[in-house]
Amino acid sequence: MPVRVAICAPATPITREDAARVQALAADYPGVALEFHDQCYAVAGHFAGPDEQRLAAFVECANDPGFDAVWFARGGYGSNRIASAALARLGPAAGRKTFLGYSDCGYLLGGLYRAGIGRPVHAPMPMDLRRAGGEEAVRRVLAWLGGDRSGEEPSLDGRHPVVAFNLTTLAMLCGTPLMPGLAGHVVMVEEVSEYLYAVDRLFFHASAHLGGIAGLRLGRVSDVPENDRPFGAGPEEIARFWCERHGLPYLGRADIGHDAANRIVPFGLAGN
Amino acid sequence: MPVRVAICAPATPITREDAARVQALAADYPGVALEFHDQCYAVAGHFAGPDEQRLAAFVECANDPGFDAVWFARGGYGSNRIASAALARLGPAAGRKTFLGYSDCGYLLGGLYRAGIGRPVHAPMPMDLRRAGGEEAVRRVLAWLGGDRSGEEPSLDGRHPVVAFNLTTLAMLCGTPLMPGLAGHVVMVEEVSEYLYAVDRLFFHASAHLGGIAGLRLGRVSDVPENDRPFGAGPEEIARFWCERHGLPYLGRADIGHDAANRIVPFGLAGN
Repeated sequence: MPVRVAICAPATPITREDAARVQALAADYPGVALEFHDQCYAVAGHFAGPDEQRLAAFVECANDPGFDAVWFARGGYGSNRIASAALARLGPAAGRKTFLGYSDCGYLLGGLYRAGIGRPVHAPMPMDLRRAGGEEAVRRVLAWLGGDRSGEEPSLDGRHPVVAFNLTTLAMLCGTPLMPGLAGHVVMVEEVSEYLYAVDRLFFHASAHLGGIAGLRLGRVSDVPENDRPFGAGPEEIARFWCERHGLPYLGRADIGHDAANRIVPFGLAGN
Repeated sequence: MPVRVAICAPATPITREDAARVQALAADYPGVALEFHDQCYAVAGHFAGPDEQRLAAFVECANDPGFDAVWFARGGYGSNRIASAALARLGPAAGRKTFLGYSDCGYLLGGLYRAGIGRPVHAPMPMDLRRAGGEEAVRRVLAWLGGDRSGEEPSLDGRHPVVAFNLTTLAMLCGTPLMPGLAGHVVMVEEVSEYLYAVDRLFFHASAHLGGIAGLRLGRVSDVPENDRPFGAGPEEIARFWCERHGLPYLGRADIGHDAANRIVPFGLAGN
């Protein structure tokens, strides 16, 4: 019996062509069966359909006992708008599921983790297939779903619970009803397409909310736009600065980011 | 005896030419005497000098009993890095001062307001002289410092205390040791140069922290970059959406923004 995976789009849409390419790759993984919800292709302004449609599709996938996992098709922006309402509607079948995604979908992963519902997992998404080398990212998830743990982030030690977030997503989660308690956790963050001054600003905010974590690991900070003048410090210097300011242990780099090499981080304790 | 105003740059620098142009305008206001601190022209990467230099200049201006007001030269980014340390060093003379600025300098205004130190005022800054029509903005502040209240934001009613912030600045303040309690306040926000999806995201975050406010007023949301697809809602629709989500009264527009028309908002109760 294969692992049955429902795919929906809580933020922005993909195309039927994207889905077909992922299905073609999945043919190499007979232990995994993917089912794309039609909502993945809906379009309403910025989003993959209006809030109500995205909410309904996610809740349908999560509550369906016929699926073992829910894989988010794509980030972009929008899962925060439906996350609280979604959590309130989840039933027992959702609690037995794995939920996979990253970037904007971190709002849902964070909220699920806070609520103790199922297993949230930072992982590449179907949309990553559009990246250079993206096939590798999608195969990493398909293999993981089939039981191959080699795609997991290498620092996971099974001693500290971990989470992984896009830095903007984590900053926006802080203090909201979706924010999980992260005391004792190793917190991994990555960022993309933000000026370094904005990265510094996000660290100012997020680090003020992370008291009691076991430590912070910095993923890749990629596609930094050129500003009108140099910031004067690199991403790791920025991370160290704010960790020091708030007494958070800085633990080094994490092998995550908005790229094909993005590794898998199951929230909580590895091996559980 | 004129109102004596010290000018420093807690975030990014201005030039001596900027300062000379502001001084030339100030000659029309004999009731106001400006003194630019040399730190305004310092440059270290993104900032107007290293943190220590910006901190020292601000503390020197604020604690000097020879000045009645401290006017921030320019926003940009960086006042958050020195705000907590600055507050801890302020003495009695700072408590008798007016502090003026906006945008990134909202971190200082917010922290001062929380600490009950002096009178924080959302107001145009010397750097606004570089804008089209910016002379009007700078004159508005010079007149206000001389006692002319006509440049104040017109909705101030003397019944509700008010604050005004750049939306990003307010969002980053939330939950930090600089965030003032805003229960009972009218909160005005404005934004510049952000995609509408980012404005929506900032409202998601900030509105979750604004329970108990008297209401929200939306200033201008200007220079919105063109995205690869339309967001599907305008700034006011976004503000209304998140106010409704969190049960915050939406009170209409505010006459503030990153532009020459930006009006003055003394924090707290008007007339006090």
